[in-house]
Amino acid sequence: MHVAIPLYPRFTALDAVGPYTVLAFAPGWTATFVAAEPGPVADDRGSLALTATASYADLPEPDVVVVPGGIGTFDVLADEALLGWIRHAHEHASWTTSVCSGSLLLGAAGLLDGLRATSHWAVAGMLRQYGAEPVDERVVVQGRVVTAAGVSAGIDMALELLGRAGGEEAAQAVQLAIEYDPQPPFDAGSLRTAPAGLADRALHLIT
Amino acid sequence: MHVAIPLYPRFTALDAVGPYTVLAFAPGWTATFVAAEPGPVADDRGSLALTATASYADLPEPDVVVVPGGIGTFDVLADEALLGWIRHAHEHASWTTSVCSGSLLLGAAGLLDGLRATSHWAVAGMLRQYGAEPVDERVVVQGRVVTAAGVSAGIDMALELLGRAGGEEAAQAVQLAIEYDPQPPFDAGSLRTAPAGLADRALHLIT
Repeated sequence: MHVAIPLYPRFTALDAVGPYTVLAFAPGWTATFVAAEPGPVADDRGSLALTATASYADLPEPDVVVVPGGIGTFDVLADEALLGWIRHAHEHASWTTSVCSGSLLLGAAGLLDGLRATSHWAVAGMLRQYGAEPVDERVVVQGRVVTAAGVSAGIDMALELLGRAGGEEAAQAVQLAIEYDPQPPFDAGSLRTAPAGLADRALHLIT
Repeated sequence: MHVAIPLYPRFTALDAVGPYTVLAFAPGWTATFVAAEPGPVADDRGSLALTATASYADLPEPDVVVVPGGIGTFDVLADEALLGWIRHAHEHASWTTSVCSGSLLLGAAGLLDGLRATSHWAVAGMLRQYGAEPVDERVVVQGRVVTAAGVSAGIDMALELLGRAGGEEAAQAVQLAIEYDPQPPFDAGSLRTAPAGLADRALHLIT
């Protein structure tokens, strides 16, 4: 399976690299980072660039699409080069997926109309403008469209995807290879469990 | 706080980008990727390059060091440019940390003698050759030296570090910002829970 991960300025690095690491370790899977033009693309912190090795035109029909999110999503919601690539790729892909605000790009490309979908908690409500039903779930599978919640949820999404597309044993082998036995030191990763007032502090960090 | 993350060929991308994303979102923290020379450095899959924006000489005394692992670790266990940088940085740093086989580099630099430490399950036993006591824990804090288990454990490590260095509220705000409420679809991320025989399959993926 060939995975394409589109990069655009001010994406969130973990949105892309979480699923990438899961899928690129899977037996028989490869991944390519694509962008409007090949070359380094800077993330939302401005301190990391990932290198896209292909343009959208170079890889029009991957098997799997993983669209990351980040504050830069809002600059490309009407970028036809990206949205047109997503739309065309989706016609041929086995799986079209997103992490975090990346689901807004699937929506803007017209892929979520009438579907349940998730996103980062701060922007999930915006999915409605694309005809989607936002749901408070970490990973949402709707046919061959899979959306994940914020940032770190891309790791869970990629393991779920790999289990469906490559078999549970392959997914479990990758999980053990990356020692994904999460033990967060705090229980603050969801609005359901975070202390009161934390959402404002968190929003301030990402906007 | 200024975090330096050294890159060397065939590092594992998530080892670096997990902690990076946690720490670079923290209020008042910045991160710089360093390498022998500035420029793109290819990961262990050969399909992703992260750009180092500084050389070791450019950033000799960061506040925090995060050393990632990966199969490439074994090519740099005697690389004095890297080990000397780690050793000097550690003299001045508030925190010196590692993810996955990165702890072997802390060991090779002479930083783990007599300390408890962790690493990826596949290589943790090698810590003994550096005088460290390998322990089966996800994050091990020994004074200002912090080691993490394999790959994904860097996220937990960075949150633990941030809680200690920047306060629990800052760490919890980042946790919510990156929606780190992990829900792996399988329980195979540790040798304690993985199905029998999975270790061999996992090892085959990473070596």
